[in-house]
This record gives sequence, C-alpha cells and structure tokens, in this order.
Amino acid sequence: MDQQLTIVKVGGRVLENPETLHDFLEDFSALPNPKILVHGGGRSATTMASRLGIETKMVEGRRITDEDMLEVVVMVYGGLVNKTVVAGLQAMEINAMGITGADLNLIKAHKRVGADVDYGFVGDVDEVNVTSLIPLIRQGIVPVVAPLTHDGQGRLLNTNADTIASSLAVEFSKILDTSLMFCFEKPGVLINPDDDSSVIPFLNRELFDMYRDEGIISEGMVPKLENGFNSLANGVVEVIITNTEGLSVPGSGTTLGV
Amino acid sequence: MDQQLTIVKVGGRVLENPETLHDFLEDFSALPNPKILVHGGGRSATTMASRLGIETKMVEGRRITDEDMLEVVVMVYGGLVNKTVVAGLQAMEINAMGITGADLNLIKAHKRVGADVDYGFVGDVDEVNVTSLIPLIRQGIVPVVAPLTHDGQGRLLNTNADTIASSLAVEFSKILDTSLMFCFEKPGVLINPDDDSSVIPFLNRELFDMYRDEGIISEGMVPKLENGFNSLANGVVEVIITNTEGLSVPGSGTTLGV
Repeated sequence: MDQQLTIVKVGGRVLENPETLHDFLEDFSALPNPKILVHGGGRSATTMASRLGIETKMVEGRRITDEDMLEVVVMVYGGLVNKTVVAGLQAMEINAMGITGADLNLIKAHKRVGADVDYGFVGDVDEVNVTSLIPLIRQGIVPVVAPLTHDGQGRLLNTNADTIASSLAVEFSKILDTSLMFCFEKPGVLINPDDDSSVIPFLNRELFDMYRDEGIISEGMVPKLENGFNSLANGVVEVIITNTEGLSVPGSGTTLGV
Repeated sequence: MDQQLTIVKVGGRVLENPETLHDFLEDFSALPNPKILVHGGGRSATTMASRLGIETKMVEGRRITDEDMLEVVVMVYGGLVNKTVVAGLQAMEINAMGITGADLNLIKAHKRVGADVDYGFVGDVDEVNVTSLIPLIRQGIVPVVAPLTHDGQGRLLNTNADTIASSLAVEFSKILDTSLMFCFEKPGVLINPDDDSSVIPFLNRELFDMYRDEGIISEGMVPKLENGFNSLANGVVEVIITNTEGLSVPGSGTTLGV
C-alpha cells in the first residue's frame, strides 16, 4: 500500500461562517489527492429547526432526531451544507462530489435501539461500501460526505460525522494508507480550554486515560478521541486533531499514537 | 453507438406524495440500465418557503429565486427530495447516487441577466460535463440529478429540471443512443386537459405549432415541448411525454418526432 489517502472531518462551527469556511476550503484544497471531506452540520440544523418552529432536544450533548428533525438534518446537512461546500471547492478547481451514506450505498446503518435514551432516527453503522468510490478518488474526484446514512429500507438516518469519518477511514485502510484529520475550531486537544497554546502534541491511550481521569479531557472531546483511537486500532496510519491552519502545517495539532 | 441510455425527468407532483413516489420509483427501477433520473421539486419548495415565512414570487409560472429562496431550493431539491429518492431507490437495489449540477462540475451555468424580469439566482446552462458520469453509469450506478447548477465561482443556481434533463440528454447523445422521457401526472399531452383518454400519440413541430396556435397546447406544456424538440434536433433519439404507468409500457404517452 504505497498510495495515501487523507480523510478530513470538519466540524459544523468552521462551516457556519462564510469566512472560516472559505479559509478551511483553501487549506483543504491544497492537500494532495486522493482526499475525502466529511462534514458535520452542528448548529445550522438547530437554527433551521428553530426557524421552522421545531424544538431541538438534546440529551448528553446528542441530538434527538424525531421525524421533523430528520427532515431538517436531511435538508441542512445533505442539501445546504453539502452543496455549499461542493460549489466552494469547484470554485477552487477541486472536482468535488457531495454525497451521503445513502448515495452509492456508501454507509448502511440501523436505527439505534435498546439505549436508555430513544435518540430517534439515529443510525449506528453496520456496513461501509467504498468500492464505488475507489475509481473516483483515483481520478481526482473529491467526495464530500454529509453525516447521513440509510437503513436499506428507504429510511435516512442521522449519524455522527466523527463516526462517519472514522468508519470510512477504517474501511479505506484495507486498500490505501489512510490518514484521518479531525479539523475543528481549536488548534488541538488542549490542557487548558482557554489557552490555545496549551496543545497536547501527542496522546496515546495511556495518556488519554490519565487526562480523562483528571478531568482535563472531557465532554465532546472524549468520543472524538475514542473514535480516533478506534481508527488507529483498525488500520488507520495516522490520526491528527487540529484546526484549519494546522491542516497544511506538519506537526501541528495533537497526534494520536500507540 | 449501440449502447442505449434512458434519461427520465420526473415532476415535483409525482414526488410530493409518498405513494405516487413509491409507484414511480418501482416503475423507474424496472427500466434497463444505464439510466439517469432528473427530478423537479415544485411545490415542496413553496411549502417549505412558506413554513419559513419566505414569500414565493412567481412571474409567468416561473419562480423568482432571491437569496432566501435559493437557500430553500438547495435544501429541498438538493437535500430532502434528492436524498429521499436515493434512499428509496437503494431500498429497491438500485445503486443510486444523488447529485446536483455542482457535483462533478456536471452543469455550469450563469445567472440569467438582461431578461425583462429579474428571476434572481436562476441559472442558464453554459456547459455540461458528463465525462465523470460515463464510467459510473457503465458500472450500473444510477445518477439522480437535482435541478441545481453552479457558476464556477461558488454560487449555486436554480435551473429548471426539464432544461437539466434535455441538456444532459443532448450531451450524452454524443456518446450513447439517448432517450428522454418526461414523466408527469398526466398520461401524455392531452387535447382536452380534463380527459386523460385524449392523449396525442405523436407530435412533430408542425403539429405542435398547430395545436399551440389553436390554444390546445398551452402554459407549462409549451416550454416542455420546446425542450423536447430542441433535444431531438440535437441528437436525442427519442422523446416521450407520459405518466408513471406509461414508463414501462411501450407506445404510451406522446412521442415527439420529426
């Protein structure tokens, strides 16, 4: 496996503002091919839901996706955010193709059941089919993936974008040397959330457990890092957590390792 | 050119109702490959705009697409309608891939200028690039195309779905024997709009001009037929106007010819 693939996951907040979106897309477009972009949606779905008079219910930081909210996330993630990113990349001469997990049967999932909380139409990943994407990325096409999956019965499901990114990275690792970059508004995993210079440059499981036990790493960062370590354990060669500027600067951000 | 391609354009009304959508997708899925589906959106965007408190302005049956309405059509056509169709086709074992004219740089357009009416962010087609789609349709992938284009500068544009379908048909005709089917809620072009048995089985330009001069063919059917005749004049081998049931029944609907 000499060919390398970079999968970048970008969070909703970077995409919400036209200027940070533009900066991000410029840095992303400078990365060598083949590459894949996975985007979140975040608050843009909450804003749209509120404009439609739909209440956003969150439990432990996770969105409850009822029928009305599913419609909103399909519109916002699969339509507005995805196509805005695609048009922005095309303007930078990147041949982007925006898809969801339903397109090309890319990611099949099932509606989460048996949890203490009913999250609604939230999909847990069962199957990732990258076969159709391989010839596309070899031609220089850049897939832009929205955080939606399908159940194979015609139902779309809302799936966490970090999970989509790590599921794709693990599957592509069977064919290509795959790096996974989580790009968000902070320069890396921070010791002090208010101090951007306190980036932890390297984390392995042991250090992660220590920081978590001390409460230094908490909340949304925990599942992100779990996803990262899980990807490493399943063949992904490199996992980096950084911000837009860090995308193109080697050694930036937090590198996960064993 | 021995390989045949069928491009089906389906109107918004067929897609609005889950039952008519399901029936349509079943009939569409039974058509032989390669095939492409182009969908409209119609009233679903009007409904969503109204829920968001955005007024729909129409001039001579055409939507005025201001900034707010563009956001709605990108969400509804590019997201909700497109991904609902894709998930429905995947449930029928059709490997659908939902895209817009921005994806794969499929259709480049420019914002309409110089018309008597300012239609807003409406795109007139400049360039159709089907190269990336050819290997996909040969693999059995079925593109599902939403009626959106882009200007190459990062701006998405709203483009009539009939125009998208005929532009694709003309471009594909250079490579494959291409048939174009306009599928809507009526069984064909009718002499009496209230009588579904009054289908005109065959129309050429001369007959069309005659029916139009007599006021028998009017309103939305005129640009649809203009698109059809334009496609025939530019290499498309067959243009048929029919309803869902007519898709799979040879000789149904109205056939355009020279």
